Amino acid sequence: MKAPQDIDRTRMVILPEQEHGERLARVLKYMAKAGLESMLLCDNANKFYITGRIFDGYIYIGPDGQVSYFVRRPSILEGKSVHHIHKPENILEIINREGLGRPSKLGLELMQTSYATVMRLAAALGVDSFGNADSVMLSARAVKTAYEIQQIAVCGMRHDRVYSRIPHLYHEGMSDVELQIEIERVTRLEGGLGIIRTVGQSMEINMGSVLAGRNADEPSPYDFALGGAGTSPALPVGADGTVLRAGMSVMVDTNGVFNGYMTDMTRTFAVGNLLQRAIDLHKLSCDICHTIEDMARPGVRCSDLCRKALDMAAKAGASNLFMGHNSQASFVGHGLGIALNELPVISLKTDSILEVGNVLAIEPKFVIPDVGAVGIENTCAVTDDGPMRRLTNAPEELITLVS
Amino acid sequence: MKAPQDIDRTRMVILPEQEHGERLARVLKYMAKAGLESMLLCDNANKFYITGRIFDGYIYIGPDGQVSYFVRRPSILEGKSVHHIHKPENILEIINREGLGRPSKLGLELMQTSYATVMRLAAALGVDSFGNADSVMLSARAVKTAYEIQQIAVCGMRHDRVYSRIPHLYHEGMSDVELQIEIERVTRLEGGLGIIRTVGQSMEINMGSVLAGRNADEPSPYDFALGGAGTSPALPVGADGTVLRAGMSVMVDTNGVFNGYMTDMTRTFAVGNLLQRAIDLHKLSCDICHTIEDMARPGVRCSDLCRKALDMAAKAGASNLFMGHNSQASFVGHGLGIALNELPVISLKTDSILEVGNVLAIEPKFVIPDVGAVGIENTCAVTDDGPMRRLTNAPEELITLVS
Repeated sequence: MKAPQDIDRTRMVILPEQEHGERLARVLKYMAKAGLESMLLCDNANKFYITGRIFDGYIYIGPDGQVSYFVRRPSILEGKSVHHIHKPENILEIINREGLGRPSKLGLELMQTSYATVMRLAAALGVDSFGNADSVMLSARAVKTAYEIQQIAVCGMRHDRVYSRIPHLYHEGMSDVELQIEIERVTRLEGGLGIIRTVGQSMEINMGSVLAGRNADEPSPYDFALGGAGTSPALPVGADGTVLRAGMSVMVDTNGVFNGYMTDMTRTFAVGNLLQRAIDLHKLSCDICHTIEDMARPGVRCSDLCRKALDMAAKAGASNLFMGHNSQASFVGHGLGIALNELPVISLKTDSILEVGNVLAIEPKFVIPDVGAVGIENTCAVTDDGPMRRLTNAPEELITLVS
Repeated sequence: MKAPQDIDRTRMVILPEQEHGERLARVLKYMAKAGLESMLLCDNANKFYITGRIFDGYIYIGPDGQVSYFVRRPSILEGKSVHHIHKPENILEIINREGLGRPSKLGLELMQTSYATVMRLAAALGVDSFGNADSVMLSARAVKTAYEIQQIAVCGMRHDRVYSRIPHLYHEGMSDVELQIEIERVTRLEGGLGIIRTVGQSMEINMGSVLAGRNADEPSPYDFALGGAGTSPALPVGADGTVLRAGMSVMVDTNGVFNGYMTDMTRTFAVGNLLQRAIDLHKLSCDICHTIEDMARPGVRCSDLCRKALDMAAKAGASNLFMGHNSQASFVGHGLGIALNELPVISLKTDSILEVGNVLAIEPKFVIPDVGAVGIENTCAVTDDGPMRRLTNAPEELITLVS
């Protein structure tokens, strides 16, 4: 008999059977909606969603809903419907031989997979037209199962522990980069995997960012809520080496990726005394966050959440500081789970309507020129009967850093 | 007048003018070889290659060799040929209005850009057929300029400093993961950016890996030379929490990404006494590495380098341990620069012929079951008149870790 550890090493689907079934049912529902009858998936986030593991290969869902796994590596993987291949050109022969359902109305991951790979897979499967499997998978993944929310809650608890250590990591004369490095270290010691999966090519980052002083107002090419100049034009985002000084706010926005899922959390710290305006707008960020957490119930439009946040900022005369100053983000929150930027997005342009199980990072932030950024970000789940369930629970108030 | 720092913030091309010209000449040469008359680039590594910075937008090279920059963010970028746009659909109108040369025989990054983006860009530029700009750019980037080699040499010096600290990071009872976290921290403190750019989708990693004991023989789905089980099925590579114990080798393979370029270096440490076989094969790895460094001169075939390495391993009766044991890699080295996996590759299947300026990571490693992995990896440049120039110079011998 195999020890549990060995079963995990070699078993293709390591999700609990019911969980695997629930996710597949979601995928099949959105395939039907999109008019797709079959899909071939190779994106790591999608493979992780369906099996609970990363492997080198492909997941094929045939027209009858049957799922097959075509594995290149590692060779030790086994289980029902696992077929070892050398290259995608081997897949069609196995489908035909084993009666796995010939591809028809095939979906491929057109947003996450390179043009060259999509063309190769289409040729390998003998199809000359195909639909977008990414939309199907992102729709399926937008509503989390109870199991997924539990995974994210585990990230939140670990993420909270990391944040409780931040005041102890600070010493006088430290730079934003030095503080960030110590935060990265404790995140890794808590079990952080050290990578963040994203959808698309608009983000490059390791574990998050620390913004202090004027650098909080530096624009970045990346699609994060705030920017920062970074330490190099090779990675122009986040901390830039600013020495933390009295009067500066220090915004810590990191991701807690501990088990393949993640939480996104922001807390703001103060060095010495901050301008009253900064203190007030930090409080307003908390208020906006809590208002959205309360409003965000099934059936609510994401655009209405964004409008509410913008209205609250406007009422405080702080529209020009909300979600950036020199450069302003067009969203105040975003879905997340396996990837940092999942659906739905909380922006005026989004026509999504909330469903039970959406998990959102809500990040109504303000930039105060010369002071820094203030505000919070929480990761929360839409519930069926009340305010969102908050999954990041570190204290929200401004904490003053003292050596 | 602007301070230099401000010029860097807003100037599009921050490479020295001659360097920028030299790189463009290389790109134009390979465009001509590939039969492309124009290219639209959006991959970050390629934008960094041409300008020295990352921005959100596109580089257009017109049929007359003229280069234009279409920038979405940040809005502060300026300079000759910089055009601000909201979306790629704005590009063609500006090309026509400004006389930038209508796209013909257009190249797009078919290997690095999603199918959806390629189709959108082709439509935006009004073309219905296109060639592969990625092959052009990877060929151009395979031969480094003197300036690029200097950038990589700077990475090597910083990387050496990180490795000199490794023995001081060890304490008895430490796990591989704990050691890796401390190595990551000193890498970041030396200025490491904390990300590794790769070509394609076969790699996910933060700064490298530490392999010890049996875990060195665990297969991984990723296309690295060696594997490791990792700490989670969500990222099955590298350190797995093995407690470092007497008799184990500890292989540290990390990337030194300090300025947008990188070195790749491996050194092996010992806890207590290792089996003589492990000590011998570590020595053999050094010998193979040095033999290849000496052989790798302009005009030499990469496949011959690989064959030589395999022959040396075979002569020692260690073919079954070379480049892995349970699972063996098919290469013993790879190009690198802005990305971890550039051209050429040192494998039997490669038909590349070395040129002056190729930069290669040479990593002839052995896995000793139950002990761990042994061997070294150096990043070296092909010179015009002798052995390769070694850019990673940390001591190569097995160093015993002592608390």
